[in-house]
Amino acid sequence: MSSLLGIFFFLFFFLLSSNISAKIREYKWRVEYMHWCPDGVDGVVMAINGNFPSPTIRALVGDTIYVHFTNNLPTEGVVIHWHGISQSGTPWADGTASISQCPINPGETFLYKFQVDKAGTYFYHGHYGMQRSAGLYGSLIVEDEKEPFHYDGEFNLLLSDWWHKSSNEQQIDLSSKPFRWIGEPQSLLMNGRGQFNCSLAAQFSKLGVPQCKLRGDEQYAPQILHVHPNKTYRLRVASSTALSSLNLAIGGHKMVVVEADGNYIQPFSVKNMDIYSGESYSILFNTDQDPSNNYWISINVRGREPKTPQGLTILNYIPHFASKIPNSPPPLPPLWNDYKYSKAFSNKIFGLNGWSPKSPTRQNRRILLLNTQNRIEGYIRWAINNVSLVFPTTPYLGSIKYGINNAFDTKSPPNTFSKNYNIMKPPINPNSTYGNGIYMLKFNTTVDVILQNANVLAENESEIHPWHLHGHNFWVLGYGDGKFVSKNVEKFNLKNPPLRNTVVVFPYGWTAVRFVANNPGVWAFHCHIEPHLHLGMGVVFAEGVHLVKNVPNEALTCGLRGKMLVKNKHK
Amino acid sequence: MSSLLGIFFFLFFFLLSSNISAKIREYKWRVEYMHWCPDGVDGVVMAINGNFPSPTIRALVGDTIYVHFTNNLPTEGVVIHWHGISQSGTPWADGTASISQCPINPGETFLYKFQVDKAGTYFYHGHYGMQRSAGLYGSLIVEDEKEPFHYDGEFNLLLSDWWHKSSNEQQIDLSSKPFRWIGEPQSLLMNGRGQFNCSLAAQFSKLGVPQCKLRGDEQYAPQILHVHPNKTYRLRVASSTALSSLNLAIGGHKMVVVEADGNYIQPFSVKNMDIYSGESYSILFNTDQDPSNNYWISINVRGREPKTPQGLTILNYIPHFASKIPNSPPPLPPLWNDYKYSKAFSNKIFGLNGWSPKSPTRQNRRILLLNTQNRIEGYIRWAINNVSLVFPTTPYLGSIKYGINNAFDTKSPPNTFSKNYNIMKPPINPNSTYGNGIYMLKFNTTVDVILQNANVLAENESEIHPWHLHGHNFWVLGYGDGKFVSKNVEKFNLKNPPLRNTVVVFPYGWTAVRFVANNPGVWAFHCHIEPHLHLGMGVVFAEGVHLVKNVPNEALTCGLRGKMLVKNKHK
Repeated sequence: MSSLLGIFFFLFFFLLSSNISAKIREYKWRVEYMHWCPDGVDGVVMAINGNFPSPTIRALVGDTIYVHFTNNLPTEGVVIHWHGISQSGTPWADGTASISQCPINPGETFLYKFQVDKAGTYFYHGHYGMQRSAGLYGSLIVEDEKEPFHYDGEFNLLLSDWWHKSSNEQQIDLSSKPFRWIGEPQSLLMNGRGQFNCSLAAQFSKLGVPQCKLRGDEQYAPQILHVHPNKTYRLRVASSTALSSLNLAIGGHKMVVVEADGNYIQPFSVKNMDIYSGESYSILFNTDQDPSNNYWISINVRGREPKTPQGLTILNYIPHFASKIPNSPPPLPPLWNDYKYSKAFSNKIFGLNGWSPKSPTRQNRRILLLNTQNRIEGYIRWAINNVSLVFPTTPYLGSIKYGINNAFDTKSPPNTFSKNYNIMKPPINPNSTYGNGIYMLKFNTTVDVILQNANVLAENESEIHPWHLHGHNFWVLGYGDGKFVSKNVEKFNLKNPPLRNTVVVFPYGWTAVRFVANNPGVWAFHCHIEPHLHLGMGVVFAEGVHLVKNVPNEALTCGLRGKMLVKNKHK
Repeated sequence: MSSLLGIFFFLFFFLLSSNISAKIREYKWRVEYMHWCPDGVDGVVMAINGNFPSPTIRALVGDTIYVHFTNNLPTEGVVIHWHGISQSGTPWADGTASISQCPINPGETFLYKFQVDKAGTYFYHGHYGMQRSAGLYGSLIVEDEKEPFHYDGEFNLLLSDWWHKSSNEQQIDLSSKPFRWIGEPQSLLMNGRGQFNCSLAAQFSKLGVPQCKLRGDEQYAPQILHVHPNKTYRLRVASSTALSSLNLAIGGHKMVVVEADGNYIQPFSVKNMDIYSGESYSILFNTDQDPSNNYWISINVRGREPKTPQGLTILNYIPHFASKIPNSPPPLPPLWNDYKYSKAFSNKIFGLNGWSPKSPTRQNRRILLLNTQNRIEGYIRWAINNVSLVFPTTPYLGSIKYGINNAFDTKSPPNTFSKNYNIMKPPINPNSTYGNGIYMLKFNTTVDVILQNANVLAENESEIHPWHLHGHNFWVLGYGDGKFVSKNVEKFNLKNPPLRNTVVVFPYGWTAVRFVANNPGVWAFHCHIEPHLHLGMGVVFAEGVHLVKNVPNEALTCGLRGKMLVKNKHK
């Protein structure tokens, strides 16, 4: 009788918790260093199972992903962050060192197990030290049968920037006194492929770079997009850049933007689009151009004076030769510092009615986060409300869940910044402090965050910062110039704000986002520019940690938690 | 009454176990990367407390050393091996990743605590991945009041070789398919100082390198040895080279060799001396030359075709200017491949009667270890008796002590090699296997090891290998050419063999050593050339592990032992 009851309950929960077709998708991955040639110059990348970029995961919404992740690096720990995945119920699988788990040590295998509960274009990447810059990234595509648009075929481009100096050395440079800036990337990559010593479009260029002569099987040969005429294609695009904001264009083709960070948006048409690090989009385009030509797909640096050649590949109309060079030059991007242009793009993005949850009409708490560039003991750092984030040795998730004392500053960092702060000038007192305190959010409350930009240490300079929130999407309520003031609230878009996980803060401007703190766990919210995060530009939120269940034993056995376990054992 | 008894026992053991003046010497160290310029070319080193080389420890025999060692590296684990220290009673403090302890993770502090029970010239260095090559080394000098010689002053030179390519990239190169050899070092360093783009002795050189113009405060300016005329000086010298065998000379001065690896030896006089990686010596020299001159101290590469400029510093007779260039060229080393010369030097080293324990007259077990260069799955590796050592994730000390299954191959690796093996030819079957089995030694037995050299993969080539044993000294019973045969035993030196911790195996030759397995623990025995160890050239001995007591909780909490601890906790 009791076994019958057991079967009943099993069936009941099985039907309740998964749609009929939901699958477990299981992967065995090992990460290691390997020599690779992303842009024609011999280099070293962090690769998974010998692939650069790391393998693409494709799943259906509702599937559960199992990744048995083995660290084959010689001496370094590693974690993988599944960027854009909510990790609802699995906050320990978020893959953020010092926050959600201990680094996976060399020789160890960690099982990431999480559900992909929302269709969209995502990616994953290293989230320890600067291992994303080392090339540790790959695509994660979640499909759904129901979608608010149709297309005949699809492509996926994962964008990144590439330095010839190793990420290890970049990290040392950034932490040096005197400070050593890493400079602009040598190349821009699409799916890990770029060209440094030659150009695909040399004949249109005045730079004197030779024309690439490629067989097509080189590690740095572009991945060509082959299309049939008069069809509609979906192009999925995500940016894993370490530093660069990008502008993407398909020569001669209009693009209709339909998805942002795994959220459907009101379709709008552009001839080129900005994409910041941490963002992803889907665009639709029709192959309605002269089918006897090929066309450029280009990415260019935005928001920083471009010193990096544009990244290129080719849209090839079948059945013509892919090697045929398009007969017009690659599309020109907007001026690198035409922020008006960028703002216009961002302001075109709205949530799609009926496909996105509505924003709560009011917040329970508002946090203002001023970012400043500072010096601490002669080191250059970024700070938020005058605190430059340094990560603790014991992951927050463990120290909060297990009530471990002295694992981090229990004093909350400031909720706001001085009203008198002049964001148009370099900081008057450029001194800041290190800190690892976190913002404790009341579970299930609605939180507004105003990200406030400011002038850097040098006069007349303010930088772009794309901020990424782990474990949640937020509604983007609005952008503004200058210093945020209370009455800006009146202009918040509560009607159809887009839901996203990454949002840009423009130079000298502010950005307002709203989210519901309904995901038990500890979550990073940080500038997705990797050197900026490395230099302290981030904060940490915690909510409902007492509700976190079923943490795998091996996720949190380092630092003070490790000491606690061993002490108990030996007593 | 019982407390009185307690005091009595305390005093009794206090007097028994320590000499009156024995001290605790306590250090707080943090390791981090820093930019440094060891040879005039900007580079990156692993430094302790901002020093390259790492700080020198000086102690008196019987002292106990406490090093609170904090890992400030961004993503890498780290350990420190105290090279030449017996670690009697503290095998967990030997600082060998995968053997004696878990890597110390970023942010963690580990306390090394051990007694220096034998006077001598030692050093310490990283023993995880190739962190020694990254510059993680420093001197450890143990003094005694009683010594079999006298001197008026002393100097210490820690020798190393330096590459402009980072050790991280070297390690990736060595593990690449196709294999990428790291090449010869760019510079030789004395106390971390060398010159690459200039020479101190340019005027005597035909290489066309410019004369160094130094103020003396450059990071790569040589450390001058200032002496008074007509005195006797002790020069302590240790080699932490990654690859290079060296020859050391002091222009115009005879050297009397008096100590080898912390053991007094029968003094003998030479005009230059070989020193292999892992070895240390003390030499005495008299400042009996023309006091109006300065003299060169030089190191040169031996045993490999030298492509690295000699390392130089100056012996300066006070009160003359240190900047005065010696009036004759730096001493010429013997020809790089004059192995007869090298063997003659090695054969001059004998134990000093009355200052060294005698060797047992017979062994209980003889192990023959043939080293071969091999290929495994297309990777180049070194193998011992056809097994190429790969380290397990769970340190042996923990897996043996706590009886953990499946932590390593329990099958012992072979005790010998095929009688038919032709050491004069490349391996006929160059295929080998990975393995992590170990040699279990019966406690308190006497073990002979015959290290047998052979031809590498290329024809007519056999390399020098200096082998280092952890946790013990061994008696060097003899060297021979060709393949070891039983009757070679008859020529073993049992009368006054020198005690050492490192010994060279000459090309196409063998070396016989004897030691007593009386130190409870697990101990590496390996080629001290770091790329060779990285490629598998080592074995592991375990003895009396059941007798190991008082292992600090945090030494062994990784791998399967960590899993065990957490599992017990959660049950």
